[in-house]
Amino acid sequence: MYPESIKNLIESFKTLPGIGEKTAERLAFSILELEEEQIKLFSESLFSVKEKIHTCKKCNTLTEDELCFICSDNSRNNELLCVVEDTKNVFLFEKMGVFSGKYHVLDGLISPLDGINPEDIGLNKLIDRIKEEKFKEIIFAFKPSIEGETTALYIKKILDGMGIKVTRLASGVPIGADMEYVDSLTLERALNDRKELE
Amino acid sequence: MYPESIKNLIESFKTLPGIGEKTAERLAFSILELEEEQIKLFSESLFSVKEKIHTCKKCNTLTEDELCFICSDNSRNNELLCVVEDTKNVFLFEKMGVFSGKYHVLDGLISPLDGINPEDIGLNKLIDRIKEEKFKEIIFAFKPSIEGETTALYIKKILDGMGIKVTRLASGVPIGADMEYVDSLTLERALNDRKELE
Repeated sequence: MYPESIKNLIESFKTLPGIGEKTAERLAFSILELEEEQIKLFSESLFSVKEKIHTCKKCNTLTEDELCFICSDNSRNNELLCVVEDTKNVFLFEKMGVFSGKYHVLDGLISPLDGINPEDIGLNKLIDRIKEEKFKEIIFAFKPSIEGETTALYIKKILDGMGIKVTRLASGVPIGADMEYVDSLTLERALNDRKELE
Repeated sequence: MYPESIKNLIESFKTLPGIGEKTAERLAFSILELEEEQIKLFSESLFSVKEKIHTCKKCNTLTEDELCFICSDNSRNNELLCVVEDTKNVFLFEKMGVFSGKYHVLDGLISPLDGINPEDIGLNKLIDRIKEEKFKEIIFAFKPSIEGETTALYIKKILDGMGIKVTRLASGVPIGADMEYVDSLTLERALNDRKELE
């Protein structure tokens, strides 16, 4: 029913996460209303993103250069390493501007049920880096889950005896959350990790 | 913060309707996970859609050919013409398979408040076509609104005395709707247009 080129464009949009048939159709038709210049830029950036982007040699953050914008920034705290499960989290944290150390991006989390073992998430590169640089603390910023827990504990065991402090993000009730919407696991963790008022 | 090519891609996604900063970021990162072949197809279809698509010479439906798939289909009912405000509606109606006549796509609806006058929506082409072809009935399938009403009445006045039946879609309570969510204008219309049970 649709002209071939619109059909192809709809199919392309549908390959993206969270984009169903209706949204894909809406987006495809909206392309027709863009200026030729905008479409050209869109088309080119789609192409060049795959071509130019690769992982940072040191920390795996996505970059167009050999070293990412964090690793090549000498003003950052070299004693703190924040380990994340996805490159997106580096940008997320940086946007919030709450961390001034370095990052290391793993290729996901250990998840034996999904067949993802320690050797699949790039741990060797992390361990080698930790041995080489002089970090005083490694912070695991994984999502609170069995997989996050497993991965953190696994790495901690390897680092034992190296004299490095190993921490994870605090879990608990999010600021501003309504208590009635807090799930039981989060509440349990918030109770266990309760802090004394000073 | 983002590498240049990712930033460009995010900006491109943000030009699309309903795509905000966060969604644009999510989509841009998801492009990195596509196969090179898929990205190539995406990039090409973006480009070719603007290049190949234009409006049907006869009815203004988007097409890659001189005549659209409706106008070039001889098996359709030539006596019924459904006038819509947007080419998307042609595809929408065809998908639902409830109409077997021909279509004509206007360039929007008359809306004096927005500065859109009769001469801005391509009425001449419609009138010329109606004079040329042998339609027995013209159906207005505009959205129920002041603009839809205005446009329908304006065209009807021009067609008066040509011996052509002029109708509009019925308005009323949608099938399956909960009465408590029906707005007062719809209810009023549904009452006025009430049908006798047979």
